[in-house]
Amino acid sequence: MERLRAEPERRRVTLAAETQLATGMRCEVTGRTHTVVVDEPRSVGGADSAASPVDAFLALLAGCQAITYRMWADLLGIALERVSVRVEGDMDMGGFFGLEEGVRPGFDAIRVEVSLTGPEGEERYAELTAAVERHCPLLDAIANGVPIASKVSRASS
Amino acid sequence: MERLRAEPERRRVTLAAETQLATGMRCEVTGRTHTVVVDEPRSVGGADSAASPVDAFLALLAGCQAITYRMWADLLGIALERVSVRVEGDMDMGGFFGLEEGVRPGFDAIRVEVSLTGPEGEERYAELTAAVERHCPLLDAIANGVPIASKVSRASS
Repeated sequence: MERLRAEPERRRVTLAAETQLATGMRCEVTGRTHTVVVDEPRSVGGADSAASPVDAFLALLAGCQAITYRMWADLLGIALERVSVRVEGDMDMGGFFGLEEGVRPGFDAIRVEVSLTGPEGEERYAELTAAVERHCPLLDAIANGVPIASKVSRASS
Repeated sequence: MERLRAEPERRRVTLAAETQLATGMRCEVTGRTHTVVVDEPRSVGGADSAASPVDAFLALLAGCQAITYRMWADLLGIALERVSVRVEGDMDMGGFFGLEEGVRPGFDAIRVEVSLTGPEGEERYAELTAAVERHCPLLDAIANGVPIASKVSRASS
């Protein structure tokens, strides 16, 4: 953090991930340092070898909330023994399969339930929650959306 | 799909994921059928045992695009030998750490590059791309955002 403060030009980063898919639905996606695997349940033609993208999406939001609570508790000097996060997302599967126009293909509502354990007074945990809601990367990305530019090209066989 | 068409009341589903974090940053998030693991790089206090939530977020978008291409190619009867997806996301790390007010804590721009390999004419792949852009769950969630309701409670030690 001190380095980022001293050298603000280091703050802007670009992350990337790549994958290829031939047959089947299982996708190994290579990121900077780790590989993420997704698949689909058998009911939609996958091998169920890993979480589906929509299941994993909720899992990431839960993990990102928990990590942001951990990090901001430390930054603010707030004792936090445990943070539990449950995320639920509602979707209409008819959207993905195009069964009805105007239905979103993924989530239309997400609920996050956080439970905090620790010795501090209520006001300190309220301060922590306010900091997390302002600084959680995936809460921001999902609640507010991120502009996406898509480019599609044809590769030769 | 036939069952969903015949019984539209089965189309609405709720997915869920849960995690707990005590010390460290590594999070095992339990979903319906699979566990997703996230961690942070050592530079921000993690053990680098898994992709970070922001890295994994881009990976899921790449995987979801690839799977949606696969599925819709099959639904539309379009031969698709291979789909490659690269996703990039830009962020200012000063947002996450609260170094500057008004800076988003996560991604402010995402780029998706798709490359398609197969024997069909251009117009069929254009049709496929249009279908995928309308029906990809995570493209929709991220580009348009999803309303999130948060609830925070205090658990006893």
